[in-house]
Amino acid sequence: MLIVGEKINTTLKRAKEIVEKKDKEGLQHLAKIQVDAGASMIDVNVGTRIKTEVEDIKWAIETIQEIVDVPCCIDSPNPKVLEAGLCVHKGKALVNSTTAEKKRLEEVISVVKNYNCKIVALTMDEEGIPEDVDKRCKIAGILIDRLSSEGFSLDDIYIDPLIKPVCTDSRVGKIILQAIERISTLFPGVHLICGLSNISFGLPRRSLLNRVFLAMAMARGLDAVILDPLDKDLMATVFAANTLLGEDEFCANYLSSFREGKF
Amino acid sequence: MLIVGEKINTTLKRAKEIVEKKDKEGLQHLAKIQVDAGASMIDVNVGTRIKTEVEDIKWAIETIQEIVDVPCCIDSPNPKVLEAGLCVHKGKALVNSTTAEKKRLEEVISVVKNYNCKIVALTMDEEGIPEDVDKRCKIAGILIDRLSSEGFSLDDIYIDPLIKPVCTDSRVGKIILQAIERISTLFPGVHLICGLSNISFGLPRRSLLNRVFLAMAMARGLDAVILDPLDKDLMATVFAANTLLGEDEFCANYLSSFREGKF
Repeated sequence: MLIVGEKINTTLKRAKEIVEKKDKEGLQHLAKIQVDAGASMIDVNVGTRIKTEVEDIKWAIETIQEIVDVPCCIDSPNPKVLEAGLCVHKGKALVNSTTAEKKRLEEVISVVKNYNCKIVALTMDEEGIPEDVDKRCKIAGILIDRLSSEGFSLDDIYIDPLIKPVCTDSRVGKIILQAIERISTLFPGVHLICGLSNISFGLPRRSLLNRVFLAMAMARGLDAVILDPLDKDLMATVFAANTLLGEDEFCANYLSSFREGKF
Repeated sequence: MLIVGEKINTTLKRAKEIVEKKDKEGLQHLAKIQVDAGASMIDVNVGTRIKTEVEDIKWAIETIQEIVDVPCCIDSPNPKVLEAGLCVHKGKALVNSTTAEKKRLEEVISVVKNYNCKIVALTMDEEGIPEDVDKRCKIAGILIDRLSSEGFSLDDIYIDPLIKPVCTDSRVGKIILQAIERISTLFPGVHLICGLSNISFGLPRRSLLNRVFLAMAMARGLDAVILDPLDKDLMATVFAANTLLGEDEFCANYLSSFREGKF
């Protein structure tokens, strides 16, 4: 399971202040505590800083990679920002993201094809986010075809079926679970990722809904997730789910993580 | 989701003392708090009381049904005990259980066919509990065929794929999840049930493993479960999972249960 820590995002107050002040220690601390909590990748999103996004993403990635030995998830819809991030990134980054919107897809590809990176592809096109499973699978197929033709292996492609809040439509959870299972069955080898916390937007006890949905999605084939690794209950769910899915021989990782007080 | 409360079981200290003393108030309290916590059925297992099991199950069921308006799950491998329970039970009981072992299956059928009841059928036969998914599905088919031929509708049959502890074999969780999904796909209309807590036997933080596995199993088609409804975190998982699976229009039950302090 790939755990991408979501805390370095300037829509969040703490990260916003850190990036505004170019608080190097603050940023490195925020990266380190996520890795210590179990994140194997750090999401970097400075998208609210429209005028300085290019400079800010370079600063953030360089500063983070001074202190932690994990790759970053370079998170922006803007190809120029993605390129700026890729330029300074050490190791294999995850670019987040493209969609199947023709202009965006081709612009992102023209940037990422020059780097050895992984990519998140969202199942949406010019018509927006699909209502149903079939359309999500169809768009996933289009994205996989196009990215494969540019040399991306399936192992470097992360399909995001785009979670919407369950409070807006009670069918959403089931649709996402079916999409995860069907896409991973149709395209074996491709990864399935999601931004988890959208599911619980607008409801009480969001952390409860997030962790229950994470367990469900892992049971259907989700193998990467963007989440708050400082949420101990959520990380406990990841450790337990890995063990219950047979990804943890002799329950060794569960037992050692428990002894280390990780959950 | 059918929630069967598991607390009235004489392998547990509290229930053992209550049944030994024929503590009517104690038994009724133990039934009522389970129903108040969300159980829609009460499991009754007095199997450790070998010499008096027949009398004890009658006393327990009559005493429980004086105070709560839910059916019981009559839990014994002994057909005589099942019959004693069915004799006094009001409404439609769930008989727990038969297996595909020929002698046991025919003996249980000879009892239950005289009552309008539901039945739990365990996927094991003379060779024991299968190691794999295929054999579990095959046994489920045999059980469903035989029970159907005696007039049981699919809606009255609850297949239990028999959870073993994940600490004994790390493949167990995945096997059970696949069995749940395949049996519910092969025999649409039949119910899938399990005794949850076996999965976590021998490991720390059992409640965590139980609730994560419950979410996963519900995502794959489990629609009935025997559990401890007094475990608030576990019941919170049930409320959240129902909502996330689209079984809760406008999240109404989630919101009202939250307001009532149920989780």
